[in-house]
Amino acid sequence: MTNVLVPVGLDRNSEEPIYRQLIRHVRAQIESGSLPSGSRLPASRDLAQQLNISRISVVNAYAELRAEGYLSAHAGRGTFVAGERAASANGTGSPDFGGVMLAEASPSALKSQADAAPIGDRSLRELMRLARKPGVINFSQGSPPLDFFPVNALRHAIEVTLDRDGARALGYEQTEGYGPLRSAVRDYVSALGIRCTSNQVLITGGTQQALDLVVQSILSEGETIVTENPTYLGMIDIARARRVNLHGIPIDEDGIRIDMLENYVLERQPRLIFVMPTFQNPTGRVMSLHRRRQLLNMAGEFNIPVLEDGVYHELRFDGEPLPPLKALDDQGVVIHASGFTKNLLPGMRIGYVISDHYHYERLVRVKQAADISTPGLNQRAVHFLIERGLLSQQLERNNRELRRRRDAAMEACERHLPPGTRWSSPDGGLYLWIELPRSGPTAAELYISAIQHGVAYAIGSIFYPAGGGTYRLRLNYAVHRPAEIDEGMRRIGRAWHEVSSDYADMEKPPLL
Amino acid sequence: MTNVLVPVGLDRNSEEPIYRQLIRHVRAQIESGSLPSGSRLPASRDLAQQLNISRISVVNAYAELRAEGYLSAHAGRGTFVAGERAASANGTGSPDFGGVMLAEASPSALKSQADAAPIGDRSLRELMRLARKPGVINFSQGSPPLDFFPVNALRHAIEVTLDRDGARALGYEQTEGYGPLRSAVRDYVSALGIRCTSNQVLITGGTQQALDLVVQSILSEGETIVTENPTYLGMIDIARARRVNLHGIPIDEDGIRIDMLENYVLERQPRLIFVMPTFQNPTGRVMSLHRRRQLLNMAGEFNIPVLEDGVYHELRFDGEPLPPLKALDDQGVVIHASGFTKNLLPGMRIGYVISDHYHYERLVRVKQAADISTPGLNQRAVHFLIERGLLSQQLERNNRELRRRRDAAMEACERHLPPGTRWSSPDGGLYLWIELPRSGPTAAELYISAIQHGVAYAIGSIFYPAGGGTYRLRLNYAVHRPAEIDEGMRRIGRAWHEVSSDYADMEKPPLL
Repeated sequence: MTNVLVPVGLDRNSEEPIYRQLIRHVRAQIESGSLPSGSRLPASRDLAQQLNISRISVVNAYAELRAEGYLSAHAGRGTFVAGERAASANGTGSPDFGGVMLAEASPSALKSQADAAPIGDRSLRELMRLARKPGVINFSQGSPPLDFFPVNALRHAIEVTLDRDGARALGYEQTEGYGPLRSAVRDYVSALGIRCTSNQVLITGGTQQALDLVVQSILSEGETIVTENPTYLGMIDIARARRVNLHGIPIDEDGIRIDMLENYVLERQPRLIFVMPTFQNPTGRVMSLHRRRQLLNMAGEFNIPVLEDGVYHELRFDGEPLPPLKALDDQGVVIHASGFTKNLLPGMRIGYVISDHYHYERLVRVKQAADISTPGLNQRAVHFLIERGLLSQQLERNNRELRRRRDAAMEACERHLPPGTRWSSPDGGLYLWIELPRSGPTAAELYISAIQHGVAYAIGSIFYPAGGGTYRLRLNYAVHRPAEIDEGMRRIGRAWHEVSSDYADMEKPPLL
Repeated sequence: MTNVLVPVGLDRNSEEPIYRQLIRHVRAQIESGSLPSGSRLPASRDLAQQLNISRISVVNAYAELRAEGYLSAHAGRGTFVAGERAASANGTGSPDFGGVMLAEASPSALKSQADAAPIGDRSLRELMRLARKPGVINFSQGSPPLDFFPVNALRHAIEVTLDRDGARALGYEQTEGYGPLRSAVRDYVSALGIRCTSNQVLITGGTQQALDLVVQSILSEGETIVTENPTYLGMIDIARARRVNLHGIPIDEDGIRIDMLENYVLERQPRLIFVMPTFQNPTGRVMSLHRRRQLLNMAGEFNIPVLEDGVYHELRFDGEPLPPLKALDDQGVVIHASGFTKNLLPGMRIGYVISDHYHYERLVRVKQAADISTPGLNQRAVHFLIERGLLSQQLERNNRELRRRRDAAMEACERHLPPGTRWSSPDGGLYLWIELPRSGPTAAELYISAIQHGVAYAIGSIFYPAGGGTYRLRLNYAVHRPAEIDEGMRRIGRAWHEVSSDYADMEKPPLL
């Protein structure tokens, strides 16, 4: 039996993504018996044409249904309705990704991850969870490499802390943070040119919480934050959770376009400007000194607070550092958020926010309501690591290795990516920002094939609150060693060539 | 020179508390030179009468000005404008609390604590920071005693975790929480009668974050939560930070008044009901089984979610446990929030929320925006403690000791508190709930004198979103050993007698 799938009615105007609707329909047909066990489903390309939807929607739906045990795939033979649900979990030994994935991720785990996708374009973020398939060289994360973490030093720090402070390290900490850590942060940022007192330092649960507290302190629901377009995904998450709007302003080589920003500010009076001036996520861009000053002048003139995310600032391995906005801020308009997440230990969740007293009072109140305080043991252990000079040692070592991996990544781009591809040349941070040639597939269209070839990246368009980036990829080159980087890039190149030849004789998919 | 203070214009309609206005005026007079160094200020009682404000406002203003170094106090001689600011920080060796306090708390530390006070009645919460004065037996906290924390077991748990998981324990954790901990929570609450899957468990940064995430998931700004009156201070903080309203419903012996709750729900359609059914904070009250069922029926009928805070549930040392609301919930209206904060390790900040899938998806998104994830090392260490049975051992030991301290506290009430005082007789939890006789001072009026006698408590009225509790005190009896409890209660009794005789010849203060 082949191609028994009866036509389904898909609603393009529904909030439910097309591929989800397709999943629902196929599942219903299997459960009702109209698609009996052993039925062969149409090839994804055929079904996509038949239903006038994008091939990605079909591929994604099939993948999900395989993960749920409704379908099974056999390399070269096609996709079939499974004999018994969950039977396919044992796999066929086939290298096809559907079967392999099942061994690792239970449907419920997939479900809960999918539910967490916090962005308008949810289907793309759902797609990206396929990166967790074993054997995939995963460039999609936002985290630094595990081998950068000072595990033994942390163990020692915790031992010393518990010896010294005993149960006091395990009680509630002050909402503002552990006093000595606040002082250490003050000293630490003073080396970056930021002058503040420890009373302006609030310790937070990672940089993400620092950003979220600022947004919650300053904005009411329905108000607007101006960001770079593209911007940090976590800020898009915050905007959605807090019911505030994001307005993205394009960036050029020097950073956010001040002319467009100023026009918007004049017309719309947004409540907050959010930027990541150094090694911006996802682009890796560094805002020029001149642009920094222009931004501060404008913000001062209109009295709009600027939230600066400095979390990649110290991950510099080439070029001269530029001062953070907060170091240039003589009018008190900048709120500086950062943390020891990218440069030391993401999972300890120690971040901080530095602001003038006007915002500080409200930030502390919001922090107290949010979670009372950041775990004291974590604060004390990180304090110990900083005091012992371990942070700076670790940074130096990590940055040397980052440079090596950046070099490997750029060589691999040169070697494996198709002609016409462009990529950034970062002096720091974790990411390469790549633009595919427009003659071939978009980053989203390439994605499934890339996974099948054993490589994953972040699809650029998810970072654009104002749309864009269709051909962009963000690659975290930091998390792999040079040989893996080369192999991963080779796989991207291969996938691109395969999809390109595939797509050459196809219309561009009508949906996506 | 005495009584040179010139009359000041106080604005009773200002949002600025009266005592803050007074501080501002006195400070200005000192700085302008109109109150020169060495000037003697009026006795607090005299100035209060002269300005027709409460004596507490004056005492509090003087205390703050002493803390800032503007004034110095000499026992039995009065209060003077200090010679040089900060000179008074060296103290006079006097037992007067102003001088002693200075040695411990810098003005800026006081300031930042004061700024954090997250409640309408901020002056009372500012007052309560005086509890940190050294030598004070402090019954005011919300935390369990330090000597209950399993410091060595935790150290071992962290060692084992780092040996086993290495750097993986220090990377980003899944937003939903560390899988094995979610399963352990599912098993743990099943012993309380709550049936759920681990996919309904979200790990949070303490119980406070669990509550906050629920509020943020369900309510928009300006909407209303119904609570018990009095209620948990952390919920008052959340409401203020999130710009939502609280409506307090009185409680009786069986818990929240269902008749009044139902009327309110019918008329106003609030978005959420928040209750703490077992060992409510601050009253220690336990909602009867019948009332629990009534509440659930009503909530089911009107389809209003009920947020249950179960954090004191297991701190029971007498009587038969009643099922949590979530265990009685066959309609899926209850969201259960709790954590390992009161019963194990407050500073590790591990809480959880259990909800049906409908709310769960949004909770995960809000959690991801809030701080990405709860620290993985903390989750893994707490998981280890639970798996090894340490939590239940610890609970048993702690509850035995809690009973001993409860007994000591009740005996001490009997022995030292003035006739006409009433107090609760809790079967669990951390708090005694005391009502002073109406013949004497209110809890707020008694406070300064209590501090001067070396004892502190939580002033009851701060827990009442709908007003009330003027004569109520919340005492955390758990944090002290029996001998200290007795001494603390003796000091409260003495302070009460002193203020009573003081106040006998005074009008009730017009403001407060």
